[in-house]
Amino acid sequence: MIKRILKKSNLRISIIGLGYVGLPLAIEFSKKFTVIGFDIDHLRIKQLNKGFDRTKEIKLNLKKNRIKFTSDSKYLKNIDIFIVTVPTPVYTNNKPNLTFLENATTLIGKYIKDQSIIIYESTVFPGTTEEICVPILEKISGLKYINTNKRKKGFYCGYSPERINPGDSKNNIKNICKITSGSTTEIANFIDSLYKLIITAGTYKAETIKIAEAAKIIENTQRDINIALVNELSIIFKKMKINTYSVLKAAKTKWNFLPFYPGLVGGHCIGVDPYYLTYKSRKLGYNPMVVLSGRKINDKMSKYVVKYLINQMNQNNISIKNSKILIMGLAFKENCADIRNTKVIDIYNGLKKYKTKIEIYDPIVDKQQALKEYNIKIIKKLSTNYYDSVIIAVAHNSFKKMGIGKIKRVCKKNHIIFDVKNIFPENNTNLKL
Amino acid sequence: MIKRILKKSNLRISIIGLGYVGLPLAIEFSKKFTVIGFDIDHLRIKQLNKGFDRTKEIKLNLKKNRIKFTSDSKYLKNIDIFIVTVPTPVYTNNKPNLTFLENATTLIGKYIKDQSIIIYESTVFPGTTEEICVPILEKISGLKYINTNKRKKGFYCGYSPERINPGDSKNNIKNICKITSGSTTEIANFIDSLYKLIITAGTYKAETIKIAEAAKIIENTQRDINIALVNELSIIFKKMKINTYSVLKAAKTKWNFLPFYPGLVGGHCIGVDPYYLTYKSRKLGYNPMVVLSGRKINDKMSKYVVKYLINQMNQNNISIKNSKILIMGLAFKENCADIRNTKVIDIYNGLKKYKTKIEIYDPIVDKQQALKEYNIKIIKKLSTNYYDSVIIAVAHNSFKKMGIGKIKRVCKKNHIIFDVKNIFPENNTNLKL
Repeated sequence: MIKRILKKSNLRISIIGLGYVGLPLAIEFSKKFTVIGFDIDHLRIKQLNKGFDRTKEIKLNLKKNRIKFTSDSKYLKNIDIFIVTVPTPVYTNNKPNLTFLENATTLIGKYIKDQSIIIYESTVFPGTTEEICVPILEKISGLKYINTNKRKKGFYCGYSPERINPGDSKNNIKNICKITSGSTTEIANFIDSLYKLIITAGTYKAETIKIAEAAKIIENTQRDINIALVNELSIIFKKMKINTYSVLKAAKTKWNFLPFYPGLVGGHCIGVDPYYLTYKSRKLGYNPMVVLSGRKINDKMSKYVVKYLINQMNQNNISIKNSKILIMGLAFKENCADIRNTKVIDIYNGLKKYKTKIEIYDPIVDKQQALKEYNIKIIKKLSTNYYDSVIIAVAHNSFKKMGIGKIKRVCKKNHIIFDVKNIFPENNTNLKL
Repeated sequence: MIKRILKKSNLRISIIGLGYVGLPLAIEFSKKFTVIGFDIDHLRIKQLNKGFDRTKEIKLNLKKNRIKFTSDSKYLKNIDIFIVTVPTPVYTNNKPNLTFLENATTLIGKYIKDQSIIIYESTVFPGTTEEICVPILEKISGLKYINTNKRKKGFYCGYSPERINPGDSKNNIKNICKITSGSTTEIANFIDSLYKLIITAGTYKAETIKIAEAAKIIENTQRDINIALVNELSIIFKKMKINTYSVLKAAKTKWNFLPFYPGLVGGHCIGVDPYYLTYKSRKLGYNPMVVLSGRKINDKMSKYVVKYLINQMNQNNISIKNSKILIMGLAFKENCADIRNTKVIDIYNGLKKYKTKIEIYDPIVDKQQALKEYNIKIIKKLSTNYYDSVIIAVAHNSFKKMGIGKIKRVCKKNHIIFDVKNIFPENNTNLKL
């Protein structure tokens, strides 16, 4: 049956969700097959059809690709393979929000037929595909899930976690090894060969869907805990009056020391994925101490930055109320336009409580989106000799290029510059983590 | 003044404490200078004078080296440089036990003269050298500590953390970059050049003694938290019925995933150093959440191993009371003779509570020492068809060479083998972490 699908020269793939994960995937597959790129966001579809990617990850060349971007679900008829790349965020209480995933699954359920294949790429807790998505697919479609070689009629599932690194031009979809998995041996092999067609770095076929799900969730959990450790160390060393970066530089001379640095952990991956794991773990009766301690530290770093700045301003005889503070960077990550779950917002809100006057400067992020999502007006130009304090919150290359001299010129004579990401040499700025 | 010392062809160095850190250091320095290797352990000195190293790290060639091993402090007269390499363990309540360090410092205080240099290599919390050792040296010697270029008379201090990796023949003292530091710019340069004479991998001169102390303490803290994370993941995945090693193998295919594996964390470094950091941090008013959560998980892994084994034996209809259990490995680490702070002891004690009959087999560790330290008789030969369960607790190469077939032969027909360190393929053993 699968061999028949593979032989079809007119194999039709639909990518559901065209964010920073779905779009590059759709483009790669469209070089081999007909691709329907589906997203419920009409504005996004309109922009993509004009060749504009607001995530700034992809340069679109519409003429070259066999791809149709649409919000119209009628194009999901006669699709052989559905690939789900929708966001899996958390609610404000840090519980997994599977609404996008469930909605996408419900939609797909209406269009699958016998022998359809549904592959999930969204980050989920282990078990989500088979315990949450499959029942929806079965219910809506009336078809059976094929997870044994004995069953012949129904639909197959697979899980192949995305490993996109936003803002990283070196590690892209093609040259990052991709994990694959499928609900039967046969379909796992098929899914693996399918991805092999577009991933030059190769694939890794996991034993089960659950193992593939688990592998993805621990990757970001590991980064989270390692950043949490250096964040905690920076808090400890501040108390000991030791320069954290000097310590890290010295420690790095050991062959197996891992170079992590303090900072804010926001975005929709590292700061979110661990909560998916801890949610499921708690449901099974185990409260993860290590993972949650990391989340706790990283989530409170914004507050720490605010407290430390206010304290130092006070010590430097800068009166807090009505002081003018510039925050450089709103994106959740350097050289990235994405502002979802950025922790800079927590700094902004924290400073507001002190009745300071805050301006945010970020030349990369979408000004409309900042207004829409956070009601923040991003300034376009910096005034000279104007700010009492500057927080360099994000390590955008453009800030580095700007140089500390230019940043000092926007400040009043008595000022504080807090170089949160350590992008300038020590003696040029007053504060570091 | 220092130049004068450096020019002295008859520079005399004393290494205080001849464990796995002090001995190789003494040997390297003895190739350039006269070295007095001092240890209060008479037995150790006797063994060394016979050319025997019980840590099995060093092959001694006594004729070649200008070195004297002694327990007699009279040889500490006329020493130019003292290097302290004594253990810095913790008490049973995990508080730093600085007794060895303080005693060594008191002893040195009696022998230092004007321009003496005292270098510490023992792992300590930041501030120990200058806040704890220096006052002792000043008090005992009546001399002043020179930590400014303006002071000329007195003694100097330095800190150069050991980075010895026990049981690792590849990374040895000569080819691991060494951090150095000193109490004045001049003496820091001197200490740095001194170590450069013996460390082929080069040195890294830290800005201050405190930074050098901090760098050392975070190296092992980072390893501890990373192992704690995979230990916690193994607990979670057990609940999810997922094979942890399959997940780690899949995750490892990402370019930046760090290959850590579950297991016991014992010994006198990784399992101890973080407590030095947390002790000082708490004293300064900050309770380290991340670091302590890691310690907590790693410290309870032995209990977890016991509970899991007993549970599985029960499920496999092996009656627990009077069952014969073999523990393979007592050392705190693979291919290492050291049994100090080994967590295997916790497994042993845990199993004893169930009234099981336990035997321990470890061909590397010193049988006398096991008897002396833990009152454990290490067996020399394994019986055939005898054990109800085997715990492979340490990944000694000799166990790997032995093969699973031989290990199965020592077991009864219905048995459990718990391969704690995952040294054999999956389907050959019943239990893994």
